[in-house]
Amino acid sequence: MSSGKIDLHTHILPKSWPSLRERYGYGGWLALEHSGPCCARMQIDGRFFREIESNCWDPAVRIVECDRHGVERQVLSTVPVLFAYWARARDTLDFAKLLNDHIADICRARPDRFSGLGTVPLQDPELAIGELERCMQELGLAGVEIGTHVNFWNLSAPELFPFFKRCAELDAAVFIHPWDMMGQESMQKYWLPWLVGMPAEASRAACSFIFGGVLARLPSLRVCLAHGGGAFPFTIGRIEHGFRERPDLCAIDNTVSPRESVPQLWFDSLVHDAEALRLLLKLAGAKRVALGTDYPFPLGEREPGALIASMTDLTADDRERLLRGTAIEFLRLSTR
Amino acid sequence: MSSGKIDLHTHILPKSWPSLRERYGYGGWLALEHSGPCCARMQIDGRFFREIESNCWDPAVRIVECDRHGVERQVLSTVPVLFAYWARARDTLDFAKLLNDHIADICRARPDRFSGLGTVPLQDPELAIGELERCMQELGLAGVEIGTHVNFWNLSAPELFPFFKRCAELDAAVFIHPWDMMGQESMQKYWLPWLVGMPAEASRAACSFIFGGVLARLPSLRVCLAHGGGAFPFTIGRIEHGFRERPDLCAIDNTVSPRESVPQLWFDSLVHDAEALRLLLKLAGAKRVALGTDYPFPLGEREPGALIASMTDLTADDRERLLRGTAIEFLRLSTR
Repeated sequence: MSSGKIDLHTHILPKSWPSLRERYGYGGWLALEHSGPCCARMQIDGRFFREIESNCWDPAVRIVECDRHGVERQVLSTVPVLFAYWARARDTLDFAKLLNDHIADICRARPDRFSGLGTVPLQDPELAIGELERCMQELGLAGVEIGTHVNFWNLSAPELFPFFKRCAELDAAVFIHPWDMMGQESMQKYWLPWLVGMPAEASRAACSFIFGGVLARLPSLRVCLAHGGGAFPFTIGRIEHGFRERPDLCAIDNTVSPRESVPQLWFDSLVHDAEALRLLLKLAGAKRVALGTDYPFPLGEREPGALIASMTDLTADDRERLLRGTAIEFLRLSTR
Repeated sequence: MSSGKIDLHTHILPKSWPSLRERYGYGGWLALEHSGPCCARMQIDGRFFREIESNCWDPAVRIVECDRHGVERQVLSTVPVLFAYWARARDTLDFAKLLNDHIADICRARPDRFSGLGTVPLQDPELAIGELERCMQELGLAGVEIGTHVNFWNLSAPELFPFFKRCAELDAAVFIHPWDMMGQESMQKYWLPWLVGMPAEASRAACSFIFGGVLARLPSLRVCLAHGGGAFPFTIGRIEHGFRERPDLCAIDNTVSPRESVPQLWFDSLVHDAEALRLLLKLAGAKRVALGTDYPFPLGEREPGALIASMTDLTADDRERLLRGTAIEFLRLSTR
C-alpha cells in the first residue's frame, strides 16, 4: 500500500482514562462510559454528549477500516472536545500529556499506518510551547492540532504569537479545528453549531491569522484549516474587499492582503460537495488541499476520498496530490 | 433606460428624524449628526458608529449615481442597524412606520427609479403583521427586509411562522439581511463581525428556514438572502450531509432536505469573487440570483454589476437575469 491514501483529518481518544474530576478536583471534563465491547457514551458531568464506537479508540479496528477503503495512513488528532482550554492550564497540560503519549504510542507501534498531531494547553502559551517541544522532540509527532480560538483570544492574539513562532522553528504542522462554536448558545436546535458555527469558526481562524499578521511574520509556518476552511474560501472576495475598503479597521497589524495570504494556507478536502471542492482548488491549488474525512464521526466522509474519486474532471496529478501528496508535504512525511 | 440594471440590495434612511431617546424615553437608538451638506455621523447614545454621505439619504444624489452606472432601479431598504428588534415593540413599530413612509414617499415620487421594502417590529409578530399589511396594501411596497434572526428567535421559531405565512399570502418579497452578528463580542478587531459574522448569519437564516420547515410549509414564500447567501452556498454539502446523517437532530421539524430546499431560495450577487458567483449560479441558477450591491456602503460593489460584467463565460440570458430579470420576478415588478 505504498501509494495509498493519507487521511489528514481523523480523531482518536484513549479507550479509558482516570477520572479527571477526581484527578483535578472539578468538573467539566469528558468521561467515557463503555456500554459494551463496541460502544461508549461520551459524557460531561453525567450529561450525554455523543455515542462513539470502537473505531474511535481501537487502532486495530481503524486499520481494518482503512484497508477496506485504501487508506494507507491516518493522521491522528484528539477529539476537539478534549482540548480543555477552559480548564486550569496545568491540568490541561497533564491531560494533554496523557493524550499525546497515547497517540505517540500508536504511531510508534504502526509507523507505517499512523502519524500523529499533539494537543497543547494553549490557554497558557508557555506551557503550550513546552508540550509542543515534547511532541516534536520526544514523541516524534508531526505537529499539533489546535482550536480556531482559545477562550477569549483569537489566533491573532499577541499572547499566542510565541507559540506559533515556535511551531515554525520546530517545523511543526498546525491543524486548526473548531471546538467552541460561534453562536452556539443562540442556535441549539438542528445541529446548527456544527453546520453553521463550525464553518464560521474556520473563517475566524483564517482571518485572525491573516489580519493579525501571523502568516506574514512567519512565512515558514504551515497551518491547515479543517472542513475545507469552512466559510473562508467562498467569502474570500468579501474579506479581501473589506481589507481594501477599510484598511483603518483591517490592515492595522498587517499589510499583506487576504488573497495574497492564501498561498500560505492549507486546507482539508472535507466539503461534501464537488462544486465547493472545485472552488477551493481554484483558490488554493491541489498542492494545498489534502484528503480529510473527520473519521470516525458522522459529519465526516464515510468512504474516504469518494468525493475526490467522483470528480472526473480532476487531473491524475491533482488527484494524487489530494489523496496523498499534499499531506506528505504538509506533514513533512518524506523527511521523518 | 427601460432595460437598465436593477439593484436589489441598497440601503436608505431619512435625512433626519426626531430624537428617539426623547420620543420613547430610553437610549440605544441611532441618531444622525450632520457635519456638513454631504456628510453625517451615525451615532448611538453619543458613540460613533459610522460616517455616511448624502447618497445614504438623498434620492437625487442616488439617481445621479445610478445614471452613471446604468442602474435603472434601486430597491430601497432600511439600514439594518435601524431594525430595532431590541426595543419595545410598539416603539419599533412607531419608528418603522416613519421609515416605511419615507421609503414609500420616495418610491411614489419616482416609481420609475425606486422600489421599496419595509421594515417591521418582528419581535412582536402580531404588530409586524399589521405593519406588513400596511406596507403591502397602503404603501405599495414590494415586501420587507428582515434580520437573519430576531433577538432569541431564529427564523425557525414557531412564533414567527404566522408572519411568514402572511408574507406568502400577500405575495410580499422577503429580503434577509444580517444585523446582530454572531460572534461579535468575541471578534471585535479587524471588522470580523462584518467579514466573518455576517456570512454566518446568512447561513443561520437559510438553515433555520429549511430545518424549521418554513419553506416546506410555505411553497409560495419568496425569500432572498443578502451577500450571496453568506457561507450557505459553499457549505451546502456539509449541511446536507448533516441532515442525512443525523435526522434525529436535523429532520425533526421538516423532511425536505437542504439541497431540495435550495430552489425555494433567492440570493443577491454580492460575493466579490467570480468563482464564488459561479458556485452560487451552479447551486441556485441565474433565475434565483439578482444583482445586489449594498449601496452606498463600503462593503458593497462600488460599480454595480462590475463582477457580473467581468465574467465573460456567462450567457447573455444569464447576464440579463442577474442584472435585471431575477429582480423583476422576485419583486413581482411586472405586475405592480
